[in-house]
Amino acid sequence: MNLYGDTRSGNCYKIKLLASLLDIRMVWIGIDILAGDTREEDFLGRNPNGKIPLLELDDGRFLAESNAILHYLASGSEWLPEDRYRHAKVLQWQYFEQYSHEPYIAVARFISLYLGLPEDRRAEFDAKQQGGYKALGVMERQLEATPFLVGEHPTIADISLYAYTHVAHEGGFDLGAFPGIRAWIQRIQALPGYVALGEDSLSSE
Amino acid sequence: MNLYGDTRSGNCYKIKLLASLLDIRMVWIGIDILAGDTREEDFLGRNPNGKIPLLELDDGRFLAESNAILHYLASGSEWLPEDRYRHAKVLQWQYFEQYSHEPYIAVARFISLYLGLPEDRRAEFDAKQQGGYKALGVMERQLEATPFLVGEHPTIADISLYAYTHVAHEGGFDLGAFPGIRAWIQRIQALPGYVALGEDSLSSE
Repeated sequence: MNLYGDTRSGNCYKIKLLASLLDIRMVWIGIDILAGDTREEDFLGRNPNGKIPLLELDDGRFLAESNAILHYLASGSEWLPEDRYRHAKVLQWQYFEQYSHEPYIAVARFISLYLGLPEDRRAEFDAKQQGGYKALGVMERQLEATPFLVGEHPTIADISLYAYTHVAHEGGFDLGAFPGIRAWIQRIQALPGYVALGEDSLSSE
Repeated sequence: MNLYGDTRSGNCYKIKLLASLLDIRMVWIGIDILAGDTREEDFLGRNPNGKIPLLELDDGRFLAESNAILHYLASGSEWLPEDRYRHAKVLQWQYFEQYSHEPYIAVARFISLYLGLPEDRRAEFDAKQQGGYKALGVMERQLEATPFLVGEHPTIADISLYAYTHVAHEGGFDLGAFPGIRAWIQRIQALPGYVALGEDSLSSE
């Protein structure tokens, strides 16, 4: 399997982290978002939506969307519960991540970390704070009740939310008021096979 | 089962449409987003993220996020393929819907249809057009190749994308240049059990 990704992207890191935790081997193919690699014609032929991460199976088929790739890779493992309700709760948290968390926290981080918080993006950056803190509040409420988002054991929902939450400070968010989230971050970092964002864990082309 | 929803919302309509196609009975509990119902304390006790649709199971447990609810309800049916790759492709399209389609097409429709396109939202409305047309282009490319998004048969991915695509004109989008999408809309509307957005199909409280 090949994974087209950018090592700085939290969405790509989700795949890297799960692959490391499950000891799945894949070849990392470096894509530079800022250099426009995802808008090149050959990349759009692989994923018409022009986004990474993108998984290429050994038979040449492609799969896009970080959370869909997590489901594919975690299928049959303890990271994806088979129980109908708990399975749906994993999805609930992952859709929450894509709609109510990532567009605020990841985008604020992108503007600040990747673009250097230019003046013409300042208003947008500021506007992301409220939604980001709201998302953190929703997570905190759950993580005060259970050690992981869907109960006693980690699932791919935790991986999805961990990716940008643990670097939320790079988007200007202060986790000081979220002790549940901070304890959960430590729990994830203690998992066997854990790999940090940016660290080289997959073989590179 | 109870479904907390607003009949004007495409996200709520997804559930109503699948329930009708699969002949699943549930009680519809009307929620008025514009009146602030989802920000009331009792509603936030049911869903801390303050969003609809929200499914309440007979045992009192809750499930949020339209696409997660679709998975729960379609589990074991022909609307959700068991094949590992096709299952993940359903998810790919649903994450595409939540991240690359809904924030443009549904939000443009909301600003225009619900809010009456006020002058102070005009720039935001205009900014939604490019992303919306890009999403329609990605769908068109697939629907020129296969009758439904994940192949020969309809899945819950089609329901997710149909919800706001078939009313995209209400957000200012012209489907004239998308014959694949228009034929797909007709295919969905011809399905036995199809119910239109806004039509009363669930029993009301």
